Amino acid sequence: MADKDCIFCKIAAGQIPCTKIYEDENVLAFLDIGPLSEGHTLVIPKEHSSKIHNCSVEAISAVAAVLPKITAAVASTMGADGYNVLCNNGRAAGQLVEHLHFHIIPRKTNDGVFTQWPAFKYPQGRIEKLAVEIRAKL
Amino acid sequence: MADKDCIFCKIAAGQIPCTKIYEDENVLAFLDIGPLSEGHTLVIPKEHSSKIHNCSVEAISAVAAVLPKITAAVASTMGADGYNVLCNNGRAAGQLVEHLHFHIIPRKTNDGVFTQWPAFKYPQGRIEKLAVEIRAKL
Repeated sequence: MADKDCIFCKIAAGQIPCTKIYEDENVLAFLDIGPLSEGHTLVIPKEHSSKIHNCSVEAISAVAAVLPKITAAVASTMGADGYNVLCNNGRAAGQLVEHLHFHIIPRKTNDGVFTQWPAFKYPQGRIEKLAVEIRAKL
Repeated sequence: MADKDCIFCKIAAGQIPCTKIYEDENVLAFLDIGPLSEGHTLVIPKEHSSKIHNCSVEAISAVAAVLPKITAAVASTMGADGYNVLCNNGRAAGQLVEHLHFHIIPRKTNDGVFTQWPAFKYPQGRIEKLAVEIRAKL
């Protein structure tokens, strides 16, 4: 189940230390040592998988089930005005450790942590065409 | 359960149209009309809540359980090199619609969609102090 070369598997197994804030049979949460804001937390399933599309429903469900209470505790402790929950999948998306992990990033109004939101509009007919193609794979 | 002023509750109830890609009893997924990249998808629980820390475990678990297959279909269709799964909670974190929603954002290498990652290091002792405070709320 564990990947012998995976740093997060080693953290989950207690072989590498972390600043733990929560642990149960299937999930571990600890503070990111390279945070984007104070209290930046990582929540991981102990079961190894690299990305959401190749993780088990059991592993992601175990993480999801504890996100409400962990986000509440982190946001409340940090006096946050909001928070992002972010899972980067693949190097192109900013993933650096190849073990599924969810960032909880406490935010303050106008903190400048994430400011990019380069939204665009689809040309006519394009959104329906994409939906047909995606639905065909579901 | 539904909030009468919530646009996503109206979409979930079929009162406002969307470009649907997936639906089950508890979850709806549709294409974002203001995408950050082609195939940008929103996944929502039908049950109304505004943020992760105040949603039910049932609602978030229902979303999580379908994320593996929806991310697989979206990423595969778009020929993505990666993807972000992002949930913004609170206006300070970029949330514009006050109904819990997860963005799936297909990514290509060097697409420039998200480039910010302003990580810093904690001063000595700070991370342990924060963990103690957060654990006290869990």
